[in-house]
Amino acid sequence: MPQRTTLRVAVVGTGRMGADHVRRISEVTSGARVSAVVDIDAERAKGLATGIDGCTAYTDPAAAMAADDVDAVLIASPGPAHEAALLTAFEHDLPVLCEKPLTPDAASALRVLEAEQKLGHRRVQVGFMRRYDAEYMKLKELLDSGRLGRPLMLHNRHRNATLPVPGFTSEMLINDAVVHEMDVTRWLLDQEITTVTVMKPRPSSNAPEGLEDPQFVIFETDGGALVDVEMSVNCQFGYQVQAEAVCENGTARIGDGHGMLVNSAGQWGGSIAPDFVARFEDAYDREVQAWVDATRRGEVTGPSSWDGYAAAAVCEAGVRAQAEGGRITVELVERPSLYR
Amino acid sequence: MPQRTTLRVAVVGTGRMGADHVRRISEVTSGARVSAVVDIDAERAKGLATGIDGCTAYTDPAAAMAADDVDAVLIASPGPAHEAALLTAFEHDLPVLCEKPLTPDAASALRVLEAEQKLGHRRVQVGFMRRYDAEYMKLKELLDSGRLGRPLMLHNRHRNATLPVPGFTSEMLINDAVVHEMDVTRWLLDQEITTVTVMKPRPSSNAPEGLEDPQFVIFETDGGALVDVEMSVNCQFGYQVQAEAVCENGTARIGDGHGMLVNSAGQWGGSIAPDFVARFEDAYDREVQAWVDATRRGEVTGPSSWDGYAAAAVCEAGVRAQAEGGRITVELVERPSLYR
Amino acid sequence: MPQRTTLRVAVVGTGRMGADHVRRISEVTSGARVSAVVDIDAERAKGLATGIDGCTAYTDPAAAMAADDVDAVLIASPGPAHEAALLTAFEHDLPVLCEKPLTPDAASALRVLEAEQKLGHRRVQVGFMRRYDAEYMKLKELLDSGRLGRPLMLHNRHRNATLPVPGFTSEMLINDAVVHEMDVTRWLLDQEITTVTVMKPRPSSNAPEGLEDPQFVIFETDGGALVDVEMSVNCQFGYQVQAEAVCENGTARIGDGHGMLVNSAGQWGGSIAPDFVARFEDAYDREVQAWVDATRRGEVTGPSSWDGYAAAAVCEAGVRAQAEGGRITVELVERPSLYR
Amino acid sequence: MPQRTTLRVAVVGTGRMGADHVRRISEVTSGARVSAVVDIDAERAKGLATGIDGCTAYTDPAAAMAADDVDAVLIASPGPAHEAALLTAFEHDLPVLCEKPLTPDAASALRVLEAEQKLGHRRVQVGFMRRYDAEYMKLKELLDSGRLGRPLMLHNRHRNATLPVPGFTSEMLINDAVVHEMDVTRWLLDQEITTVTVMKPRPSSNAPEGLEDPQFVIFETDGGALVDVEMSVNCQFGYQVQAEAVCENGTARIGDGHGMLVNSAGQWGGSIAPDFVARFEDAYDREVQAWVDATRRGEVTGPSSWDGYAAAAVCEAGVRAQAEGGRITVELVERPSLYR
Repeated sequence: MPQRTTLRVAVVGTGRMGADHVRRISEVTSGARVSAVVDIDAERAKGLATGIDGCTAYTDPAAAMAADDVDAVLIASPGPAHEAALLTAFEHDLPVLCEKPLTPDAASALRVLEAEQKLGHRRVQVGFMRRYDAEYMKLKELLDSGRLGRPLMLHNRHRNATLPVPGFTSEMLINDAVVHEMDVTRWLLDQEITTVTVMKPRPSSNAPEGLEDPQFVIFETDGGALVDVEMSVNCQFGYQVQAEAVCENGTARIGDGHGMLVNSAGQWGGSIAPDFVARFEDAYDREVQAWVDATRRGEVTGPSSWDGYAAAAVCEAGVRAQAEGGRITVELVERPSLYR
Repeated sequence: MPQRTTLRVAVVGTGRMGADHVRRISEVTSGARVSAVVDIDAERAKGLATGIDGCTAYTDPAAAMAADDVDAVLIASPGPAHEAALLTAFEHDLPVLCEKPLTPDAASALRVLEAEQKLGHRRVQVGFMRRYDAEYMKLKELLDSGRLGRPLMLHNRHRNATLPVPGFTSEMLINDAVVHEMDVTRWLLDQEITTVTVMKPRPSSNAPEGLEDPQFVIFETDGGALVDVEMSVNCQFGYQVQAEAVCENGTARIGDGHGMLVNSAGQWGGSIAPDFVARFEDAYDREVQAWVDATRRGEVTGPSSWDGYAAAAVCEAGVRAQAEGGRITVELVERPSLYR
Repeated sequence: MPQRTTLRVAVVGTGRMGADHVRRISEVTSGARVSAVVDIDAERAKGLATGIDGCTAYTDPAAAMAADDVDAVLIASPGPAHEAALLTAFEHDLPVLCEKPLTPDAASALRVLEAEQKLGHRRVQVGFMRRYDAEYMKLKELLDSGRLGRPLMLHNRHRNATLPVPGFTSEMLINDAVVHEMDVTRWLLDQEITTVTVMKPRPSSNAPEGLEDPQFVIFETDGGALVDVEMSVNCQFGYQVQAEAVCENGTARIGDGHGMLVNSAGQWGGSIAPDFVARFEDAYDREVQAWVDATRRGEVTGPSSWDGYAAAAVCEAGVRAQAEGGRITVELVERPSLYR
Repeated sequence: MPQRTTLRVAVVGTGRMGADHVRRISEVTSGARVSAVVDIDAERAKGLATGIDGCTAYTDPAAAMAADDVDAVLIASPGPAHEAALLTAFEHDLPVLCEKPLTPDAASALRVLEAEQKLGHRRVQVGFMRRYDAEYMKLKELLDSGRLGRPLMLHNRHRNATLPVPGFTSEMLINDAVVHEMDVTRWLLDQEITTVTVMKPRPSSNAPEGLEDPQFVIFETDGGALVDVEMSVNCQFGYQVQAEAVCENGTARIGDGHGMLVNSAGQWGGSIAPDFVARFEDAYDREVQAWVDATRRGEVTGPSSWDGYAAAAVCEAGVRAQAEGGRITVELVERPSLYR
């Protein structure tokens, strides 16, 4: 694919996330445009497509991917629909940006891995957008430099003001929320997670009946690091994500979020982001731009299907640890050469 | 101009700033592409144009602006060339993003003002990029909200690690550096600057012979605010821009730049941006995107020719204050209705 | 004891800690003076006593406590000598400030508890000096106010630049270091610790052979809170103690230690305290002053023998957890009415 | 005076400041006690003396200073009474801690200087307590170390939530408030102030009729440094004192006051001290202890009568600058050898 051609993207799934990506590609991303939108809700797809020059509405992902004016696919449909969409994209050998999760469980993720291996080259970038956050990137760079020595521990805080969606369950706490720290851990440390433990204080009175919130999740890695995650979805005060890497010769912390400092009414301080959209807006922009840029260069970069599979496997261990107590071992297949 | 058409931009001047804008429009900005590059150095222009699909090289700005595939002009040539380029753009009624300064002095800026008024509508956005910096935008929003009451003072720090360019003079300290605080003051407070005073400590031993650095510049405004600027171009430790608004009921400070916090070797802290490119990269991106977006909507927004003219007039007072000592009054013509 | 009489203190043990308390009482504390110093090293005791008006040197604690000019006792001898010294002080019904640990194990601490109960009133303040640190006091006040709701978690960092003493062992990591977080946890939350778990990453290459450092210690409390402690004695960069209470409606963190902020050589930041003496100097001053003030009023305040006993019991569980792995239950006798 | 004797202090003046010093010496300071209190209000003096063992009440400072049980004098009466009290103390050759101002104007301060010179040795420590503040001491140490190079500028913020006393005037703004920055400037830089300029924004609507508040005061020094002071007595949000030294190779800022950090209700931050008592409590404690310690050693340290005189002279220039506008030169006699 020559460098200067505009990338024509099919966006599959136009819920909150998908619609936001449509807007992003149309108004923010350089070098790409949305040529197809797909939603089982035909009206919704049509509504979106109407506002965009040269954009066609579909209800069937396969039809969109078969179209002549589609160079790449962004999958933002619900998780259970991902496997089929990915396999179809592989049939057309289309580059994919797949929102997390890759698929909802390790077994299906493994099938995707195998299908991609049959293609013989990587086609998938998984939507772990924290890897594109400016502060996480600085932390990664610092750790990779070795300046602080080997990482020994990683402390994480992942706090949501209120339930992301009504009916949020304890399992979703792992699969939808802690999954970000699973990926961050694997990426920052370049190590696999080997065990998961979940501990729980008495729930906050802000948590709805039946939801054990907050929780404290502990990972061990194959590099001997210890990782903890304070996870809450009812902290009330805002959305806050922090990480502190504790290394042999120093520590580094990100996420304090100290922008404008105000003195007012007996207090110094500033405001906290209300939600992940505000906190990670730049990361999403950078993620999609990185995907478009790489795709236009004919490359595939960023989090791979292996990263998606590994996250799914760690999630499964996490959900078990949550239910059963104790320390649960993560089961992973051997890493295929395509992903080394 | 319909919304979804890609804006075809002629970039006039391809020095450090212009070349960076060419890259930005090509790789970062959504909805625009570079269709013409202009430089008196024909080789340089050709070299740049070659790497870009559908881009023609010119040595004459007028020729580029007359081309069919040019919808808008970004002027990044040296200041003395701006007036002619702006007047030519007006002949073609082309929207312009003009790097600061609008023109090098108040008299020429006034001629531009008059020419634009003859057109009967605004055509120019001046490149005061700080207005597009996320922290300055937050500060502006806070001041406009009235939450802290009326602004009484504004303290500014503008520190460069080392001379921006060799041969940097005391006049350039005002015209090229403090000019940003002049615009920031006018914009944040929505007031005109009425007097300028320049005070000087004994120069730093890091300053080259003949350059009085640092300097302390004080503005008074027609709204009764008092503004001070610590300006240095040899502070050694990095590039740092800070502003603290002191209002009736509180203060707000931006520019602490506290991102990743590292504990290491007996010290807590983090790194300081090396230069304005690193510090304001996002602001430049946002500035150009805002210009492209507005232009595609058929609008002109952002800093106007009046802002460019006012800055030039304050600069003239500043240079006199620097040379003569004392408090120099700023002379401004009455504000034309086009800019109210 | 009437308010305005100077308190005459016998200091038992004149090692690093004891000698520092002698200096403190002589030069910093208001309303007290050292009338006796006791050390098995007669020369050392005599050397100290010589410099102080009206101060006698002893080698036997019992002799000092029997002296007419001794109103109160500060015990700073090695832990194994504490039980005998405390029981002797009880015989004379003398108020005691006993450096931590109360005694080296739970069984001996229990004997002290019982002896004090026979007296029928509290006589002992245990030297948990963090309760007198200005930031911990603020955190305690905030938690007690209920403004942030019930505490759910408490994250602690306890970092030493290098081994506090040569030959420091894994057990000392619990008994001499984490013991502070045990007391802080019990005091801040006003809850007892019910279980201890110890997790260990692969040791830092800065740790001496045989010492597993750092370690990660987790407490559960009878109020349903979850507490973690990152404990290290080889972090290299300085001495740092932090605590973050995570409550239902907010969090509060102390120990950032952000005093003077310096911009220099590409970095913003400041210096980290080199050791606990620098970090907690004010807390020691305040602790001894509080003891002197209470004693002169005829009262006993601060951490009690029960606190010393509970810490010993949690330490025993901690050492087992460290050696055996898993979650170890803390065994406590029922709390006597004297300490309720 | 032998080291270990308790210093018997007469406190002259028992208003807010004096009464606080009585409490301090009685309850906080080591090695001193109050043996006399003096107030023209006999009831008030008697009331205070009654609560203190061995303390006599006086209405005449001279009578107190003539008493056998008075070793030293702390003057905390209103400024106009200082000269007489100081001269009486000189007659008895008593060491004095004199609350600021030394005297209310430069002429009377000069008379004190001359009287002290006749004694042939320093007797006076002036109560500029900021020199004993932990952060100012750190800044002083850093500047003296030369690590950051020569100081070029010093930016100061001095903010009071509300009027320190009813009827506070513009002159008091200089004489009672900015006087602290005058001393801090002279002490930190070890330079004399040569000119004073006062600039004023339109007053805050929080300022009472007739009080021009805030003000912006600028000093030049004989070492070529430029110093600015933002002074306000109606900032509403709390009491805040900050200083930033701008040196050739770096800057250092104190006074951010970032202790406990709280996340709550969409905000991160902490509380601001309500007034100077809370902010500088430790400095007052340290100041009085330093005076007692030095006096017991037979020494006089800290801010001298010369410092008191210089402050008075700079205040006179400041009040003129405030009234007349422009840059007013400070007139100082030659520095006597006793104060070099």
